Amino acid sequence: MGSDFAGSDFADRDFAGKDFAGVEFTKTAAHKALRALAEAPHDLTAEGALTPERIGAFQASACGFDLLYSTQRITKEVLAALGALAEETGALAQFRALMAGVKMNRIEGHESENRQVLHFASRNVFDDLPDPFDTSPAAEAVANARRELEKLRGFLEKVEGGTLTNAKGEPFTDMVNIGIGGSDLGPRALYLAVVPFSRGGRRVHFISNVDPDDTAQVLGGLDLSRTLVNVVSKSGSTLETLTNETLARSAFEKAGLDPLRHFLCVTGEGSPMDNPERYLATFYMFDYIGGRYSATSMVGAVLLGFAIGYDAFSDLLRGAREMDLHALTPDVTRNLPLLTALLGIWNRNFLGLPTLAVLPYSQGLIRFAAHLQQLDMESNGKGITRRGGTVAGDTGPIVWGEPGTNGQHAFYQLIHQSRTVVPCEFIGFRQSQHGSDLEVQETTSQQKLLANLLAQSIALATGQRSANPNKYFPGNRPNSVLIADRLTPRTLGALLAYYENKVAFQGLIWNINSFDQEGVQLGKLLALGKEIV
Amino acid sequence: MGSDFAGSDFADRDFAGKDFAGVEFTKTAAHKALRALAEAPHDLTAEGALTPERIGAFQASACGFDLLYSTQRITKEVLAALGALAEETGALAQFRALMAGVKMNRIEGHESENRQVLHFASRNVFDDLPDPFDTSPAAEAVANARRELEKLRGFLEKVEGGTLTNAKGEPFTDMVNIGIGGSDLGPRALYLAVVPFSRGGRRVHFISNVDPDDTAQVLGGLDLSRTLVNVVSKSGSTLETLTNETLARSAFEKAGLDPLRHFLCVTGEGSPMDNPERYLATFYMFDYIGGRYSATSMVGAVLLGFAIGYDAFSDLLRGAREMDLHALTPDVTRNLPLLTALLGIWNRNFLGLPTLAVLPYSQGLIRFAAHLQQLDMESNGKGITRRGGTVAGDTGPIVWGEPGTNGQHAFYQLIHQSRTVVPCEFIGFRQSQHGSDLEVQETTSQQKLLANLLAQSIALATGQRSANPNKYFPGNRPNSVLIADRLTPRTLGALLAYYENKVAFQGLIWNINSFDQEGVQLGKLLALGKEIV
Repeated sequence: MGSDFAGSDFADRDFAGKDFAGVEFTKTAAHKALRALAEAPHDLTAEGALTPERIGAFQASACGFDLLYSTQRITKEVLAALGALAEETGALAQFRALMAGVKMNRIEGHESENRQVLHFASRNVFDDLPDPFDTSPAAEAVANARRELEKLRGFLEKVEGGTLTNAKGEPFTDMVNIGIGGSDLGPRALYLAVVPFSRGGRRVHFISNVDPDDTAQVLGGLDLSRTLVNVVSKSGSTLETLTNETLARSAFEKAGLDPLRHFLCVTGEGSPMDNPERYLATFYMFDYIGGRYSATSMVGAVLLGFAIGYDAFSDLLRGAREMDLHALTPDVTRNLPLLTALLGIWNRNFLGLPTLAVLPYSQGLIRFAAHLQQLDMESNGKGITRRGGTVAGDTGPIVWGEPGTNGQHAFYQLIHQSRTVVPCEFIGFRQSQHGSDLEVQETTSQQKLLANLLAQSIALATGQRSANPNKYFPGNRPNSVLIADRLTPRTLGALLAYYENKVAFQGLIWNINSFDQEGVQLGKLLALGKEIV
Repeated sequence: MGSDFAGSDFADRDFAGKDFAGVEFTKTAAHKALRALAEAPHDLTAEGALTPERIGAFQASACGFDLLYSTQRITKEVLAALGALAEETGALAQFRALMAGVKMNRIEGHESENRQVLHFASRNVFDDLPDPFDTSPAAEAVANARRELEKLRGFLEKVEGGTLTNAKGEPFTDMVNIGIGGSDLGPRALYLAVVPFSRGGRRVHFISNVDPDDTAQVLGGLDLSRTLVNVVSKSGSTLETLTNETLARSAFEKAGLDPLRHFLCVTGEGSPMDNPERYLATFYMFDYIGGRYSATSMVGAVLLGFAIGYDAFSDLLRGAREMDLHALTPDVTRNLPLLTALLGIWNRNFLGLPTLAVLPYSQGLIRFAAHLQQLDMESNGKGITRRGGTVAGDTGPIVWGEPGTNGQHAFYQLIHQSRTVVPCEFIGFRQSQHGSDLEVQETTSQQKLLANLLAQSIALATGQRSANPNKYFPGNRPNSVLIADRLTPRTLGALLAYYENKVAFQGLIWNINSFDQEGVQLGKLLALGKEIV
C-alpha cells in the first residue's frame, strides 16, 4: 500500500479520494446514535453490573500491555457506535495517511504550518519490523532518523570508550539538558522512568524555565568539569533556551572550562545554532516532528542514550515502533490507542466530562502525567476545524494527574465523593523496577501498590453504600486500567506511543489539527514584546 | 472577644447563636442576585473593557502581596453581591470561630471526626503579633505549638553546634523525610521553595510512595552515615510510611549503622510510633491539625528547620501568622484570602467553570500546585453539607498547574484557544531568589519572566483578533495575578496561609466540612483489604 503515496502531495484525502477534513464529527450518524445511548449510560453501581464476564469481555492486549475497561460506562452497543464513529470519520485511514507522510499538519484555506507529521519515522529504524509505507513520502524522514541514530551511536561509543573526555582526560558523568516545552517535558519524563537502567551511575539534569534560579540551582550542584550540556532548540532561537545556554556557558567559563569541550546541541539543520565551531557535536531535528512528539527523536535520544546506553535506548524505540504498527490494527476493540481514544471521546463528548486524570502507580512515571498534559492539551486544545471553522463539539480534555498511591492520600477525595466526575486512566506494573522489596504485614510493597490500583478502579466504578452520608461513595466514575509486567525502556516506549497515537486518533476524529500550536506561539511573541498579526 | 469562647463546646454557631451549618448557600438572596448577574458577565474583550482605571480599582494588597483581579469577569455589582454572599453565609464569623478553636470539623447528626481545626495555632507563636483569641479553647494548641518549637530549637542547636553527630562524630548533611499525603506534599513543596536559603549545603530528600523503587532510588544516592531520617505519621500506623520506614531501617542496618542514631519521628502523642527507644528524637503532631494543613506544624518544621535553620523557619511561620491575622479583615475587598475565595466561587458556581489552574512563575514553586491540589481537592471535594444533606451546588474545583514559563510552551494552547475555559491564578515575584541573572536581548531573565506573566494575564482576558482563524484568541478567560517582591521564607509562609484560608473560606460558604477526608480513608482501608462500613 505504501507505493500509493510515492511522490504524492495530496492533503488529507484518503486513498479513495474522500476528504476527511470535511467530516464534522457532530454531524455523523454515529454521533447521533451515541447521543441517544448517552441518555442512559451503563450504571456501574447497579447490582451485578460488574460481573467477571463483563470484566473479561471488556479488555484488550498488545505490546505487553493489557487494557481493562469494563469500568467505563459503556455497553457493547456503545462500543459498536464508537466503532462506527471511527469508521465515519475515517480515523484509521487518516492515521495511515499521517504515518505515510501526507502533509496533515495544516488548516485548509489558511496560512498554516503545512507540514508532514513524522515522529513515527524516528522509531522506524528496525529492519525486522515491517514497514507498510516503505516507499512513501516518509522514506526521507526514515533515512534521516537512521543517519542521526548512527551519529549518536558513534558519539556514545566515544564517550563510553573513553576517547571523548574532558580536558583532563576524565570521563563525563553528568549531562545537563537545556530545552523548554517539548524539548524538556517528554525527555525529562522518560529519563525519570529509566533511572534504574542508568549505566555507570551517569545522571541527567534539566534546565528549562527562563527563571534564572533554575539554572543557578542545577549548575550549582555539579562538577562542571565532568558535565556535558545538551542544548535543544529546533529553531535555534528559543529565547528561554538561549538565555539559559548563555548563563550555562558563562558558568563554564568562570570555572575555567572550554564550552567547546562540553556543549552539544540538537537543532534544525541550518538554524542559527547549527555551528560546529560552538558545539562538540550537533544532532538534527526536523520540521516534521512537533516538539511534544519529539521524545523519540534526537531530542530525547541524546540524553537517554547518554544515561542508559545506545542499546537500551534502542529498546525504547522498538517498544514505540511496535505500538505504532499495532495502532494500524483495523478492529477497534483490539487496537489499544484507538480504543482508548474512543472511550475518551465517549466520556468527553457524550457524558460531558471535561477532564482526564492520568494516575500511574509507579514512581518512575512521576512526571509522565506532566508530559501527557502537554502532549494532549497542546495537540487537542483547539477551537477550529481543519478548514478553519469553529469546532461544534468539545475537543481535548484538561489532563492532569500524579502518581498513586500519593494521589490516594490527596485529590482522590474529590474523585470519589464530589459531584464532579473525573474519568481516570490508571497505569500499573506487576513487578517493580528495582526489585528491592520487603514484606510488611504479609504483602510486598509492589503487591500493595497493585492491590491499591485495582481496588481504586473498582471502588470508583461501583461506589459504596453507607448509612453515614459521609461514608457514601456514589460510584459510576468511569475509569480504565492499563497494565504491563514491568516498566522497562521497551514498555516505556510502547506507553509513550500509545498516548501519542491516542491523541492523534482523537484529533483526527474531532477534525482538528493536533500538530500545530498557535496558542502557545502567542506566549513566545509576547515574551519578545511582539504581537501576533 | 476571645473570652466568649472560654470553655465553650458549641459547634458552629456564631456568637449571636446563629447556626451557619444550616445556611444553604444556594438558597441565599445573594446567590439569586449572583445568578442574575452571571447571565451577562463582564465582557473583557469589549473595546475599553480593561482600562487603567479598572486595573487600579480591582486590586488589593496585604502581607507583601498584591492581588490584581481586574482580569476576572466581574463588576462592582458582582463584587458587592459576593460580599453579601459572604455576609449571609457568615464566612468571617465562622472563620473567627474556627480560629478560636470551635469544633468545626464535624457533620451534625452523624459520626464524624468532631475536632477543632487549629493549624492556625502552629504559627501563633509570636508575642508581638496580637492574638484576638488568647483565652479561647485554642490556647492549649498554642501552648503545644510553642513547646514543640522549643524542643525543635534545642534539637537543631545540637545538630548545628556539632554535639549531635553520627557514630564517627561527623555532622549530618542530609535528611530523608518519610511520609505520605499531607506529611509529604506540603513539606516537599515548601522545601523546594526555600532551597536557596539552605544552611551549609544541607539537603532534604523525600520518600512517600509505597512503590519500593522510590525508597531504593532515594537511599541509593546518599551517604547514609551522614543522613537523618524523619518518619512522619500522626496515627503511627500509616501503612505506606511504616513500609518505607522498614525498608529504610533495613538499609541502615545493612550499612552497619544504628538506626537509633539516625531516625527521628513526628507522630501523635501515645501513638504506636511514640517510643523513645526507637527514635533519636520525637516531635508531636495533634488531632486538631489535618494532614494537608500541617506544613507549619512539626510535620514541616523538622525538615525545614534542618535545611534552613530555626530562624529562617520562624520567618516562614511569621509570614503565615501575618496572613492568618489579615484574613480576619472585615472588608471583603481588602481581605485577600476571602476575596480570592469569592472570585473562585463566582467562577465555579456562577460561570460554571469546573477547574482552576495555579500557575506560579517561579521555579521554587515547582511543586506548589501539587500541594494546592491536595489542599483544595481533599478539603472541598465534598458532596454533603455539614448536616449530612446533599450539597445543592458545585464545590471545590479540580486544581492543577505547573510553573510558567514551562506551561506556556505546553498546555497554554488549550487555555487560550479551546472551547474549554480555565480560570487561572498566576503567582509571580519581582526579584529572583538567587540574584544570579544575565541580560540577553536587552532584558534580564527575571524581567522576561514577569513580562510573560503579565502579558499572559492580559492576553487571556482580552484575547486577540485575527483574520486567520488559527491565530484568533477568543479571550474572556478569567484570571488573577498575585505578586510579591521575592520568594523568601516569610512570603512563602504568607502564600501558604493565603491558600489555606482561601480554601477554608470557600468550604465555610459552601457549607461543607473542609477538614475531614472520608474519600481517601477508603483507599487506606482497601490497601489493608478492609471495607468501610
